Amino acid sequence: MREQKIEAVLVTHLPDVRYLCGFTGSNAALAVTGKRAAMFTDGRYTAQARLETQGARVVVQKKSALREACTWLQSSGMKKAWFDPASTTVSSLDLMRKAIVRRRQQTFFQPLERRPIAELRMVKDADELALMEKAALLGCQLFESVLPHMEPGVPEVEIAATLEFFARNLGAEGMSFETIVASGKRSALPHGRATSEKLPRNGFIMLDFGVIHNGYCSDMTRTVYLGKPGRKELEAYEAVLAAQEAAVAAVAPGATCGQVDEAARKVLRKAGLAKYFTHSTGHGVGIEIHESPRVAAKQEQVLEPGMVITIEPGIYIEGEFGIRIEDMVAVTENGARVLTPTPKAMIRL
Amino acid sequence: MREQKIEAVLVTHLPDVRYLCGFTGSNAALAVTGKRAAMFTDGRYTAQARLETQGARVVVQKKSALREACTWLQSSGMKKAWFDPASTTVSSLDLMRKAIVRRRQQTFFQPLERRPIAELRMVKDADELALMEKAALLGCQLFESVLPHMEPGVPEVEIAATLEFFARNLGAEGMSFETIVASGKRSALPHGRATSEKLPRNGFIMLDFGVIHNGYCSDMTRTVYLGKPGRKELEAYEAVLAAQEAAVAAVAPGATCGQVDEAARKVLRKAGLAKYFTHSTGHGVGIEIHESPRVAAKQEQVLEPGMVITIEPGIYIEGEFGIRIEDMVAVTENGARVLTPTPKAMIRL
Repeated sequence: MREQKIEAVLVTHLPDVRYLCGFTGSNAALAVTGKRAAMFTDGRYTAQARLETQGARVVVQKKSALREACTWLQSSGMKKAWFDPASTTVSSLDLMRKAIVRRRQQTFFQPLERRPIAELRMVKDADELALMEKAALLGCQLFESVLPHMEPGVPEVEIAATLEFFARNLGAEGMSFETIVASGKRSALPHGRATSEKLPRNGFIMLDFGVIHNGYCSDMTRTVYLGKPGRKELEAYEAVLAAQEAAVAAVAPGATCGQVDEAARKVLRKAGLAKYFTHSTGHGVGIEIHESPRVAAKQEQVLEPGMVITIEPGIYIEGEFGIRIEDMVAVTENGARVLTPTPKAMIRL
Repeated sequence: MREQKIEAVLVTHLPDVRYLCGFTGSNAALAVTGKRAAMFTDGRYTAQARLETQGARVVVQKKSALREACTWLQSSGMKKAWFDPASTTVSSLDLMRKAIVRRRQQTFFQPLERRPIAELRMVKDADELALMEKAALLGCQLFESVLPHMEPGVPEVEIAATLEFFARNLGAEGMSFETIVASGKRSALPHGRATSEKLPRNGFIMLDFGVIHNGYCSDMTRTVYLGKPGRKELEAYEAVLAAQEAAVAAVAPGATCGQVDEAARKVLRKAGLAKYFTHSTGHGVGIEIHESPRVAAKQEQVLEPGMVITIEPGIYIEGEFGIRIEDMVAVTENGARVLTPTPKAMIRL
């Protein structure tokens, strides 16, 4: 705050609130000045807020937590406060302004020009890295546990159900996004949620899933083959694998996200498959499944030690098949460390 | 649109996009004029968007779907377009304005004064009601299936895992929110997520959960007793049950949400328990787990046939116990229909 000459901040994005003060409830407004901090929530969270919140006074509010946080900021002597325009709705800003007494209504709240909390969250400290590694390893364990269940005729949802059941019993709070199990031609849908479709005798099965464990998300994808792959499938798989490994190898402090993306794209371009690679190479991951930085073409963001990103190139040939391979990768002082040690050579079942 | 003299709308809230055109992807901007509609998304959803989208042209966009939707609106001859300030961030509005060529930048986008799509979604048609009833019945079935697993010493998460496993195998796309299993003293946390805490020999267990089935959410709560309840527990349970039934009985077309809330609160006031009822009585439910209307004190919203709301009064006595009972209720022409037929008399295990 000092560096950016910010007197006070109003934080309403829930993952930011959790990051800053530990509270995990679904209604919260955290007001922070240079000297004090107060976290406003409602009566559903009276006990939970007291248990979880650190470094901020807890105020349980019958009416709007947001409005009360604004009043508190003004009555704390602040003349201005900053907010994150990327996570504040137009309606909320309107409500915030109305909570400020007259003269300052239009000038009190200033949009943050950068996203300081997202920037803080982007670089994980040692404790966070340890939690993320645990989450990632739990994911790997689940993948292994579910492999024996993957047989022709089993519905995709049963694979998802089994995986999620193991996840819960091994301590996950939940899944970090809707589990993707896309088999046969459905593997050409990059975001093919598990359906009642049955696993084929012969074809790819794309499995993309993540757990939430101690508040941190994991994310991994493997594409396995049921039956005997043809030459086209084998070649395509090798190309995606080479692209994924090239991108992982490009991860290092000082490299830009655009360079990492290009490393994957270049391999697929040479293999004549770049047109089927229809998304970006990866994204930051942490308390949220999608965080900064974006690992996409031309992104200038420079990688720093402590960042955790996914590397997940894929190709999708409509009507035929799709392949994606994804690891979580932590940027280290010297290069990168893959957090998802599950083998990537093609698994045939 | 005609009624509110709206020439064009830009829809970006994903549940609204799904409601209006069927697309379920995670990136979408739907632009609608009096004559045409176009749905913008990215390359991950090429095939899925074509499969799902109805009544709108699908445009797959390499860059920002939102920006492209704005350009399309202006080049379709619109002079103004409306947006929902409650689901549009300050940053998005900024991006939208920048997409409009010069002169109209500040005037092109107008905030909707009411929330017409939320209002449409609030009243379910016959097809939606059928889907919601199915989702609700699936919830009831899950509750019955999980009862035999509730024994002293079993961790809360194992109950959640089992319930979610059944849910998936019975066709749920996922859970509509993080499953609440709060046992013993933890039942006094209104939003006590399932933890590794073990079910007690003697105490309440609050189970609040919902599935997503065919895109619609269910939501129900039952609080059962393991062991032998004392007089205080029995009396408190009876009071909550009476409050819940009074609120259900108050649901009818023409009644206000505030009246329904008051019906529950009045019963708990008489029992001397109103101070422990720290949240509102319920909320609308549909494509989202929390929708309009809010069933809370003083809410003037009038109930209409086709609305589906939850009725879920509860009390939370810190350090002792908590009790909540929740049904989904559809407003009918003559009164109300409970969609969750699971019995509400105290279940002792």
